[in-house]
Amino acid sequence: MPTTQIQAFIPLFYLVWSDDLLTPLEFITLKNFIDDQEWLTQAQKELLLSKIDVANPPSRTTISEWKNSIDQITSKNPSLKSIYAISLALSEDDSDVKNAEESFTLLESSLGITSAEAISHFKTKIDPKTVTHAAHTNFDVAKITAILDGAQAPIINKVKEVISRPEFQLQIITNTEDYREQVMQWCKILAKEDFGSMAYPTEYGGGNNILNYFAIMETLSYHDLSLVIKFGVQFGLWGMSIHSLGTEKHYVKYLRDIGTLKLPGCFAMTETHHGSNVKGLETTATYNHTNRSFTIQTPHPKAQKEYIGNAAVHGQMATVFAKLIIDGHDYGVNAFIVPLRDTQGTVLEGITIGDCGHKMGLNGVDNGTISFDNVSIPHENMLDRFAAVNEKGEFTSPIPSDNRRFFTMLGTLVGGRIGIPRSAMAAAKTGLTIAIKYSDQRRQFGPEGGSEVPILNYRMHQRRLLIPLAKTYAIHFALQYLTDRFTKRSESDMQEIEALAAGLKSYSTWNTTATLQECREAIGGKGYLSENRIGALKNDTEIYTTFEGDNTVLMQLVAKSRLSEFRKSFSEMGSLGVINYVYENAKTAITEKNPITIRNTDEAHLLDSQFHLQAFQHREQTIVASAARRIKKLIDNGMDGYDAFNVVQHQMIDLAGAHLDRVVLEQFQIAISTVEDADCKAILNQLCQLFALSQLEKNKGWYLEDNYMEAVKTKAIRKMVNQLCWDIRPDAVALVDAFAIPNSCLGALVQS
Amino acid sequence: MPTTQIQAFIPLFYLVWSDDLLTPLEFITLKNFIDDQEWLTQAQKELLLSKIDVANPPSRTTISEWKNSIDQITSKNPSLKSIYAISLALSEDDSDVKNAEESFTLLESSLGITSAEAISHFKTKIDPKTVTHAAHTNFDVAKITAILDGAQAPIINKVKEVISRPEFQLQIITNTEDYREQVMQWCKILAKEDFGSMAYPTEYGGGNNILNYFAIMETLSYHDLSLVIKFGVQFGLWGMSIHSLGTEKHYVKYLRDIGTLKLPGCFAMTETHHGSNVKGLETTATYNHTNRSFTIQTPHPKAQKEYIGNAAVHGQMATVFAKLIIDGHDYGVNAFIVPLRDTQGTVLEGITIGDCGHKMGLNGVDNGTISFDNVSIPHENMLDRFAAVNEKGEFTSPIPSDNRRFFTMLGTLVGGRIGIPRSAMAAAKTGLTIAIKYSDQRRQFGPEGGSEVPILNYRMHQRRLLIPLAKTYAIHFALQYLTDRFTKRSESDMQEIEALAAGLKSYSTWNTTATLQECREAIGGKGYLSENRIGALKNDTEIYTTFEGDNTVLMQLVAKSRLSEFRKSFSEMGSLGVINYVYENAKTAITEKNPITIRNTDEAHLLDSQFHLQAFQHREQTIVASAARRIKKLIDNGMDGYDAFNVVQHQMIDLAGAHLDRVVLEQFQIAISTVEDADCKAILNQLCQLFALSQLEKNKGWYLEDNYMEAVKTKAIRKMVNQLCWDIRPDAVALVDAFAIPNSCLGALVQS
Repeated sequence: MPTTQIQAFIPLFYLVWSDDLLTPLEFITLKNFIDDQEWLTQAQKELLLSKIDVANPPSRTTISEWKNSIDQITSKNPSLKSIYAISLALSEDDSDVKNAEESFTLLESSLGITSAEAISHFKTKIDPKTVTHAAHTNFDVAKITAILDGAQAPIINKVKEVISRPEFQLQIITNTEDYREQVMQWCKILAKEDFGSMAYPTEYGGGNNILNYFAIMETLSYHDLSLVIKFGVQFGLWGMSIHSLGTEKHYVKYLRDIGTLKLPGCFAMTETHHGSNVKGLETTATYNHTNRSFTIQTPHPKAQKEYIGNAAVHGQMATVFAKLIIDGHDYGVNAFIVPLRDTQGTVLEGITIGDCGHKMGLNGVDNGTISFDNVSIPHENMLDRFAAVNEKGEFTSPIPSDNRRFFTMLGTLVGGRIGIPRSAMAAAKTGLTIAIKYSDQRRQFGPEGGSEVPILNYRMHQRRLLIPLAKTYAIHFALQYLTDRFTKRSESDMQEIEALAAGLKSYSTWNTTATLQECREAIGGKGYLSENRIGALKNDTEIYTTFEGDNTVLMQLVAKSRLSEFRKSFSEMGSLGVINYVYENAKTAITEKNPITIRNTDEAHLLDSQFHLQAFQHREQTIVASAARRIKKLIDNGMDGYDAFNVVQHQMIDLAGAHLDRVVLEQFQIAISTVEDADCKAILNQLCQLFALSQLEKNKGWYLEDNYMEAVKTKAIRKMVNQLCWDIRPDAVALVDAFAIPNSCLGALVQS
Repeated sequence: MPTTQIQAFIPLFYLVWSDDLLTPLEFITLKNFIDDQEWLTQAQKELLLSKIDVANPPSRTTISEWKNSIDQITSKNPSLKSIYAISLALSEDDSDVKNAEESFTLLESSLGITSAEAISHFKTKIDPKTVTHAAHTNFDVAKITAILDGAQAPIINKVKEVISRPEFQLQIITNTEDYREQVMQWCKILAKEDFGSMAYPTEYGGGNNILNYFAIMETLSYHDLSLVIKFGVQFGLWGMSIHSLGTEKHYVKYLRDIGTLKLPGCFAMTETHHGSNVKGLETTATYNHTNRSFTIQTPHPKAQKEYIGNAAVHGQMATVFAKLIIDGHDYGVNAFIVPLRDTQGTVLEGITIGDCGHKMGLNGVDNGTISFDNVSIPHENMLDRFAAVNEKGEFTSPIPSDNRRFFTMLGTLVGGRIGIPRSAMAAAKTGLTIAIKYSDQRRQFGPEGGSEVPILNYRMHQRRLLIPLAKTYAIHFALQYLTDRFTKRSESDMQEIEALAAGLKSYSTWNTTATLQECREAIGGKGYLSENRIGALKNDTEIYTTFEGDNTVLMQLVAKSRLSEFRKSFSEMGSLGVINYVYENAKTAITEKNPITIRNTDEAHLLDSQFHLQAFQHREQTIVASAARRIKKLIDNGMDGYDAFNVVQHQMIDLAGAHLDRVVLEQFQIAISTVEDADCKAILNQLCQLFALSQLEKNKGWYLEDNYMEAVKTKAIRKMVNQLCWDIRPDAVALVDAFAIPNSCLGALVQS
């Protein structure tokens, strides 16, 4: 037997002994293969079989020699494309080996190895695309920052300067008492910078600039989130409740001291038994006409005020929401200013404060409980913009319905539902900045013998981080739109704005929870260390989905508002309108649901912004009509209305989600249309496409059920999402750099 | 104008002034309606219009009188079904009003209110099903507990007794140092109870009972999770590394002291630059033949050991994974025992310990970094079960390939990938117990005038908590199966068990992350207070998705293992086999994919366990075949193999998920088939149906793309999921009671 024939078996021997995965079964397969080679004598077979004896493995030296032989032949002939080809070359084109081609090839497939895989296994150095794909900025980062910041750039930069000062250095303070004091000290500095009073009228020391106030809330959120919430409680909830629900006399007396933080206060609405359902609050404010006072009373322990920020330690006063009782008659929930502590911090008589204690996050905020036992306050302490008790001791209000008055009062406080989603968005941006910059640097695994791969080059990793990046950009523009609508509001569109704020509050805070979860997992153990910030961001924003209104409850409000709009517009149409509606739907069927479109997988079509928006609109309109039909049918069939809404609750959440998706996409597209710089426009367009297509992918079940798309199209969308992630990846670092988050807020892991 | 005619308008007035939602536009609609009533004189119209003058609202007394009139008429005539019907009754069947029926009805729809809704708005007390649905136990709770605990019931009960003792009272310890000491003290008590050495051989003081060891890990996880991890590091990782990788001489010397916690130690594998990719570890152990010692060295700062439990404070020794170097030749990663501290706790020369500091959770575990500078250890400290250096200074091993030897070593440590998913599952059970019991009691919102509703009666709330409950039950049985396979393992099925452990580790820990997220949100602010445990459960288990192998990496291992199985079985088939395979697929097409089945929405079919399993199997088989085809095609088209696997990475994760779904469902069904008690069988069956159908619903996009189901069927599945949630809800409290988690572990909010 010529040596060259033995040589032919080297690749197989090497595979068997070097591979991590081959099992005893595969030794048997190989043994059978050798036995079956009729051109080998028995002695030759025994020689070969001795090389694959599990009980008698080759030495490491032998294995190295095999590897060297293979390396030599493959570097001489880089075109070798299969194990068999290498075997043949090693045998120096031996004719017996040539004849055995078929059985060699069969063996390869029996071993479950494709030739190409095996070949790459033999190669010592390879640099596939997965290794070489790298960061490369295709646009001017500062220009994107300018687009994001808009007219608020000066105040945003000022806030960034302040929170970058040494005294704002982020710390991990595990002692709750110390943490609360640090946050209070920070708040005082912010007050001195006139940030707290930014939204108040100038005549009471304010800046009269609500846009700047929201920009401050958002920018502060790059820093410690306990600070943001403490800031929001004092200047937003407490101060704005005075401003929105009180009148001139209250402004004069309180607003200046609130803005300077001389008068720390609380917003005492939530009770233990009534959180989401604030209409059911049980605290009472009983009017006494003899001395024109109110007596505030907590009727039972579960009616105590709970989770009240600033209550446990610092608050000296509170806006307390309580049912007004006059002569035994209940006039619904109204608001009253109630002193809690004197200026020395001593709790006043009749007031009992509890401490909510340690929380999952936001431990720099002193949340507490408040109970009132027979606490008397003067007549002037009623916040009397929407309701009052006149000199005769009679209740008066421009809004006679108790419910409607209460919702009007709540409506004036909608600012909180703008500040929170913007704060949430900032936290998502911080998390994405940390995770994306680290993932661009961190290398792990790689091709055998090649370099390790930056983990952001892995496709799953791209999906985990870049889809949330696109969505967070989309939300940025939607929240700009919401803020703009809010500042330009009129009486008539107030209900729509309230629903939009409720919806985007849910949309943004849920995005933050999901995004930070991906960020934590994507950077592994590093994401678990407190010094790297992700833990604090996650835990602090965790409650954002609950406070300022539980997200699921808010989504139902959004859905109900959409349903009632739908039913009204349908009713107002009249019969001509209905014909038009049917005609419009028919048009959709012709242009969007025709057999060609529902199967269209052209790249130009898949990336077309018109296709995206139409698909989002179609989903929104179809779900709202279907939910309305379903509720009507259930009620018509005799089901109680309350039960019917419960039965369709899942669909109601979908409805709200579809509505918000459409608004967010639409606003992203509109924002992009105003961008002039071509490079910026191009990258924002890609992000918008990724946002749109990833949402379509997520909802593909719905689109297939509706026959708006066929399988060939939803599959093409999935591929396009992956492709966009790959294409955006080089720009990813620049896209988070464009958030321009101060270095000092990014933790220990990455520095820009 | 008779008074009775005016009476007819009372329901409309009341609606306008009492409703929360009607807008100025609707006042106009009503005004137009009144103007249009030709049977009214101008004077009558003006009288009526004066009642809806926004500038001059009615007094509260007037509104109350209207309400009383309506209440009287509806309680007299409970059959009144529309606003118009009430109007007519109030008018005492006035003929003019009778004639105006059409215009009244049109008005109702213009206001966007269905009659039924309006009627329910008028009613003072209603108790729809949403209010009255309540807890009711349909099975013997203790019997389900017995099914869950199985043969391990005695040890489970013993652990529960121990962790219920006063000295194990759960505390919120924010000071890291105190927390670490408390956990160490707890561990010492557990060691005294012989829990730590449970899996070690009896000749070294152990209990020789690995099943009990896993049951201990799981049951301890109802308590503080820092305790479980510290326990697992000491007795599992440190002790089992000695037992699995060492030989007799190591057992004699160390095992007894490890089991009693006299010798606290570490498992030092992960390095800063190599976490998931442990094959690339860079720490070296250089052999010196002159004195037969090894020198352990950290070559550069990023090669330090990181996240090592027990390192920062307590560890006296460590199993260190390092590349063995003999005469300048690298023999791959091996394991060595390296002393870190003396018995007084003083760190030894050449060792540098860092502290990982504060973490997102598990702050009772002292994670640290370890660096080695020229640390010499004797020859006997090499753990030499799989590799050794002989007396001539030569490397010897029964496994010649470095890679394969390393993976064999890792394979013996697979126990960690059983303990962690079981610990994760226990944490999910604790969270579900707290959230479900609270949601059964907590009431919020309700029909106008009716009782408030237990929040677990809301359909979305049921979906959020009961679908995870069903999945967690399913995982329980899958992990029992995994444990069983592991304890009965043979050499030949070890690879399959490793893949299963890797997969179920991911499956269970991701389920825990998702479940606890829902639990936190579902109970709102209460879920945020540390005293209620959810925060700690969430934060402590957050890292479970990363340690013992990053979930996404593990899922790819599972997928690769399934792919290679698939390719092998396909190759082994031969041509007859391929024919059979095609025939089997054709059979699926006939029985499962025929036009009747893909549209079958019969309840019996939708609830049929055979349908569920077939659908899961079909998805698994189809994805694996499709991924194999796609990879082959990419490589055949010239793509580098490494790139090809990256391109399909998303599909690989799906593949692993589909495989695990099938295993979990299959094992749940098998477990149920052995249950004899009819009531227990019935409720477990419902849970299994909910698990199966909720997974089908989640993957409906895939099934529609594959044409395995049509839209009519996926929609029916969604309804069935909602129905099952509703049906299981009364048993939900009993189903979490069956976990029998000690009261002391459930936090402040609920007590069973």
